[in-house]
Amino acid sequence: MRGTVIHGPRDVRLEERPDPTILAPTDAVVRTVATCVCGSDLWRYRGIQPVTKPTPIGHEYVGVVEAVGADVTTVRPGQFVVGGFLTSDNTCPLCRAGAHANCQNGTGYNGCQSELIRVQNADGTLLATPDTPDAALVPSVLALSDVMCTGWHAAVCADVRPGSTVVVVGDGAVGLSGVLAAAQLGAGRVIAMSRHADRQAIARDFGATDVVAERGDAGVEAVLELTGGVGADAVLECVGTDDSVVQALRCARPGGMVGWVGVPHVTDLPQEHMFWRNVGLRGGPAPVRAYLPDLLATVLDGEIDPGRVFDLTLPLDEVAEAYAAMDERRATKVLLRP
Amino acid sequence: MRGTVIHGPRDVRLEERPDPTILAPTDAVVRTVATCVCGSDLWRYRGIQPVTKPTPIGHEYVGVVEAVGADVTTVRPGQFVVGGFLTSDNTCPLCRAGAHANCQNGTGYNGCQSELIRVQNADGTLLATPDTPDAALVPSVLALSDVMCTGWHAAVCADVRPGSTVVVVGDGAVGLSGVLAAAQLGAGRVIAMSRHADRQAIARDFGATDVVAERGDAGVEAVLELTGGVGADAVLECVGTDDSVVQALRCARPGGMVGWVGVPHVTDLPQEHMFWRNVGLRGGPAPVRAYLPDLLATVLDGEIDPGRVFDLTLPLDEVAEAYAAMDERRATKVLLRP
Repeated sequence: MRGTVIHGPRDVRLEERPDPTILAPTDAVVRTVATCVCGSDLWRYRGIQPVTKPTPIGHEYVGVVEAVGADVTTVRPGQFVVGGFLTSDNTCPLCRAGAHANCQNGTGYNGCQSELIRVQNADGTLLATPDTPDAALVPSVLALSDVMCTGWHAAVCADVRPGSTVVVVGDGAVGLSGVLAAAQLGAGRVIAMSRHADRQAIARDFGATDVVAERGDAGVEAVLELTGGVGADAVLECVGTDDSVVQALRCARPGGMVGWVGVPHVTDLPQEHMFWRNVGLRGGPAPVRAYLPDLLATVLDGEIDPGRVFDLTLPLDEVAEAYAAMDERRATKVLLRP
Repeated sequence: MRGTVIHGPRDVRLEERPDPTILAPTDAVVRTVATCVCGSDLWRYRGIQPVTKPTPIGHEYVGVVEAVGADVTTVRPGQFVVGGFLTSDNTCPLCRAGAHANCQNGTGYNGCQSELIRVQNADGTLLATPDTPDAALVPSVLALSDVMCTGWHAAVCADVRPGSTVVVVGDGAVGLSGVLAAAQLGAGRVIAMSRHADRQAIARDFGATDVVAERGDAGVEAVLELTGGVGADAVLECVGTDDSVVQALRCARPGGMVGWVGVPHVTDLPQEHMFWRNVGLRGGPAPVRAYLPDLLATVLDGEIDPGRVFDLTLPLDEVAEAYAAMDERRATKVLLRP
């Protein structure tokens, strides 16, 4: 089968690789119908995170089950499935507490930007759709594999409640998903921080009531102006840099909460914006399986369309171009069709 | 009147000072019945936080209203009152959101280890007891002025819920109050980290189900052993040092929450124990007025006795000895009688 391998900065290649097989009785093999490139993949693509050897890459997928191990009971060959960016057994004490991203038996994948994937912990990771979804729904189901659940996690960690005033820092696919999550959770006001007209438009469609294009001090000022000098109850940090974390903490009102899900490349957490202001910080990799059942139902009902974050679709053959388009910000998020 | 002034490290003196007066129509003047020394006062006493000039000190009190300004409507002269360690108007947007410690019009005090205190924002700060409480209840009412509400805040910030497994880091007055708060909030298990037999005994009386005397790696190991290798749902950080913050974060299970209320003297927040483990951190100075009505009722009902954290009572004359006793750990918390 063909799968994507990253060899070093700006060097991703679709290569012939061995077909994955069932190695454990809890495994499944899934033939991908769609996969995509994640903002977090770019850290390696850009050389910020080192690549020490050629490494299969990608962690988002939807597909059709090709084979299952002897112990797998909840999915069967032929079913259309979606799984999260980490596998989880959905039974350990941490999964039972809703912390599936930290499952005691969780694993990653050996590259999902490929034609076939070995999915460990299949029962605790994969969720089958009742029927094969319409092609038009596939991007939205795929979005649940990471970005939509990650945006949702940001909103949950930031304690978004009905009526909350919410700021979303970051207008990438996760930030836009965070806007959608906040709106779904009943936020009274959702302020999207975005400088790009196309992303602002999606943010508004997803439920943003206000857009702030400024950053830094000016961004904080704009948020304060919109919130009567108080700041936001909840802030979703969806970038992961020093600047964005400070931006998020400063946009929160005293007593407010920041949900952080941008993979952090932060040198120092700025506690001066936290303790004395009673601003909390909570987040990390999203427990996809915890959110997946409800969100999948919402997608299949047509209530939300998180797949709108994909603004470019390419054949898997053109995976190198997919990375380049995202790196050069010609695309927000690229869907790949094997 | 006489009031305590800190002149420098290990130099606190009870001095003759001008009687406070009503300066604003929202002020009250309170004659103290009891006051006390806070662990946070020791930062200056120990020279860790500089004292640049002689400064009135103390921020905890109960007393009797002596005079009120023209706009004060909720308390009147002769009433027995308690107030928090910061004043709050209880009406601004931040107070309405429950963030009274960050009240837009909040203030501190000009020294509460004294015979008379000017209380700004009297209506939004002071709460009167229905009658003058029995002398035996006075320490527990006084504890609401800071430590009990601070321990409560730690438990609220750590998201303690019925059935939660809770670890409390720190066995000072705030840590012990945190144990009591966690138990009151329905925690299923409360693990107190304490090396002092007398404090362990109070912790158990307050609701601790387990005591861990170890610290550092050994402390984490002991907590993991008690929690089936998982860690605690909620951790209350009641010290404020680098070591205690790391201890708290490491004792939390993935997906868990740390409430931090120990005034932080932390060089660097250890994000390596946060993001990838999905462990959150929330806290700061407690919004006393938010918690005071319910907790005061609970104290007056005799349901909780947070005053047990006072293990030494001295006349205000001996305030210097009160500081020395706490500094040298001969006392957990000293109550002062004017």
